[in-house]
Amino acid sequence: MNRTAGVTAHQWILRARPHGRPQDSDVELVETTTGVPAVDEVGVENLVMSVEPYMRGRMGGEATYAEPYELGEPMRAPTVGRIAESTDPELPVGTLVLHDHGWRTHSLVPTAECTPLRHDDLPAVTHLGLLGIPGMTAWIGVERIARVVAGDVVFVSSAAGAVGSTVVQLAKLRGAMVIASVGSPEKVELVKSLGADAAFDYHDGPVKDLLRTTMADLGVSGLDVYFDNVGGEHLEAAIRVINDHARIALCGMISIYNSAVPQPGPSNLIKLIWRRARMEGFLLGDHLDARDEFEDEMAGLLRSGRIRPVHTEFPGGVAGAWDAFLGMLDGTATGKAVVPIHGHTGGRFPAI
Amino acid sequence: MNRTAGVTAHQWILRARPHGRPQDSDVELVETTTGVPAVDEVGVENLVMSVEPYMRGRMGGEATYAEPYELGEPMRAPTVGRIAESTDPELPVGTLVLHDHGWRTHSLVPTAECTPLRHDDLPAVTHLGLLGIPGMTAWIGVERIARVVAGDVVFVSSAAGAVGSTVVQLAKLRGAMVIASVGSPEKVELVKSLGADAAFDYHDGPVKDLLRTTMADLGVSGLDVYFDNVGGEHLEAAIRVINDHARIALCGMISIYNSAVPQPGPSNLIKLIWRRARMEGFLLGDHLDARDEFEDEMAGLLRSGRIRPVHTEFPGGVAGAWDAFLGMLDGTATGKAVVPIHGHTGGRFPAI
Repeated sequence: MNRTAGVTAHQWILRARPHGRPQDSDVELVETTTGVPAVDEVGVENLVMSVEPYMRGRMGGEATYAEPYELGEPMRAPTVGRIAESTDPELPVGTLVLHDHGWRTHSLVPTAECTPLRHDDLPAVTHLGLLGIPGMTAWIGVERIARVVAGDVVFVSSAAGAVGSTVVQLAKLRGAMVIASVGSPEKVELVKSLGADAAFDYHDGPVKDLLRTTMADLGVSGLDVYFDNVGGEHLEAAIRVINDHARIALCGMISIYNSAVPQPGPSNLIKLIWRRARMEGFLLGDHLDARDEFEDEMAGLLRSGRIRPVHTEFPGGVAGAWDAFLGMLDGTATGKAVVPIHGHTGGRFPAI
Repeated sequence: MNRTAGVTAHQWILRARPHGRPQDSDVELVETTTGVPAVDEVGVENLVMSVEPYMRGRMGGEATYAEPYELGEPMRAPTVGRIAESTDPELPVGTLVLHDHGWRTHSLVPTAECTPLRHDDLPAVTHLGLLGIPGMTAWIGVERIARVVAGDVVFVSSAAGAVGSTVVQLAKLRGAMVIASVGSPEKVELVKSLGADAAFDYHDGPVKDLLRTTMADLGVSGLDVYFDNVGGEHLEAAIRVINDHARIALCGMISIYNSAVPQPGPSNLIKLIWRRARMEGFLLGDHLDARDEFEDEMAGLLRSGRIRPVHTEFPGGVAGAWDAFLGMLDGTATGKAVVPIHGHTGGRFPAI
């Protein structure tokens, strides 16, 4: 147990609510002092931070599904850190924990909001990726929403992203045929190396044509599942070719997160009737009961090498978080975008 | 048992495939002779015919979910008739049957495609309405797709139609609060008399405003269920105000059946994610296992007067079928549009 008068920390503050694509002037990296942990708090030295698509919604200030960030307050994100100050015997100094008080080098975290890593033999970054929000989002979407079974033809958009690259692999592990849409030739190769049966770069033409051609090459005539991470043109293209009783898991619509004006939706929703198809949105928060089941399967797959983590590490320590966030929104990151902090920025807790 | 050399009958023939709203020149009423029933056929004198929204799709010739009608061939529709010629002891002369060989005065029907009416104490027209396709469609949508339970706030479009007027009543019987959209002031009064807690005429303004005002008057802030019969603006307006875990049953999209060009879909599908909502299309053909359960409940409700049949009888005998069909598409019919034949047109089977 250590007691200090607080440590020097760096953290990101929301300065303005973005309209359209976020600007550098919307945020600011500031130096601060953490203060002393209260009785029900621990001091955490952060090791690696996440950037998540939902953060864009929280910046906007409109009610989406998550509380907006307050202007002038720190932005939060999932973060893995090591406990550096604690009076709680169940959370001793040195414990690796997951918490949501990130985008900063050091955090005071209520003990109730610290989750010790159950599988701490696996790399810290894994807990933000395959074992974290994107991994569990993919798993819930595949298991509970799309209910992928062997023999299904599964189409995944944003398939080289954090969620998409996990969906590709989980769907293959369940015996499905997988078609992937990605944003560059390099990502085409990546998702094929993850097991996708076919992949295309959506910049190469209208998505509906690319999808049809890819399906024809594979000899399939319809989709049983579409795992939607982007909305817009992809969603309409997928609906065109769904099979009877298809399932469309709506996970994200990154194509519209940055639009200042509403985009028209798919013009062919009547196909959901003709094909008796189900389209369902989901959020992780409704499925926390599956946490242990998910973690145990995923940790097992990781240890046995049957699933491969894909992540992009952004450099610069805590200062790199903003580039990582924009890289995720712009699609320049591959897999899970993460920001290692340790050693890159000033301000350390005393030796632990 | 009677044997004839066939009888003179009148039937509707598809002459041209409509683009947009069907034209009178797309169809023709012709006189013909039925011919003699084969061994596995019965001769049926039709009593009352139906018009169904899906007929518009079958006229169009594109693959929807039902086989297109052939050009130059008779158009089919559900019809209640009385067997006039039969050698099948299980289908004796006089039996009331439901079959799909309608839009004609007399039909030769394969015995395998004749369904004797289980509840033949109830009026023939009932078997095309509450006990027929629209009644069962409403029941499946309420029971299996939207899964309406007591306390739900349910919004129904085209609520004075054959399906809608049944949904209003079934949802009320299950303890829901019901908001109805209809197309005239008279229909507002009708659906209120069926139990709707509130109703509006969608011609009175943007649907989103009418819906919000109606909800405010009722003191409710969101919808648990939207039963969609029309698509388009109604669907977008409903999605705007769904509650968490809302269910949207896609039953029909009459607003687009007659459009020659695709209409943009709702611009707010991302709300399906934020609200973790499910939107699901359905067709009756997937739910035939529920036939007896549905019929028994509906027949009981009818006999006890707890559900009220709503139908519009179009005059003119078989010749009235075309006006009935257009009336249904244009929304001038209220409830189930039916066409009584008996006695109105030439050509009778010999005495039965």
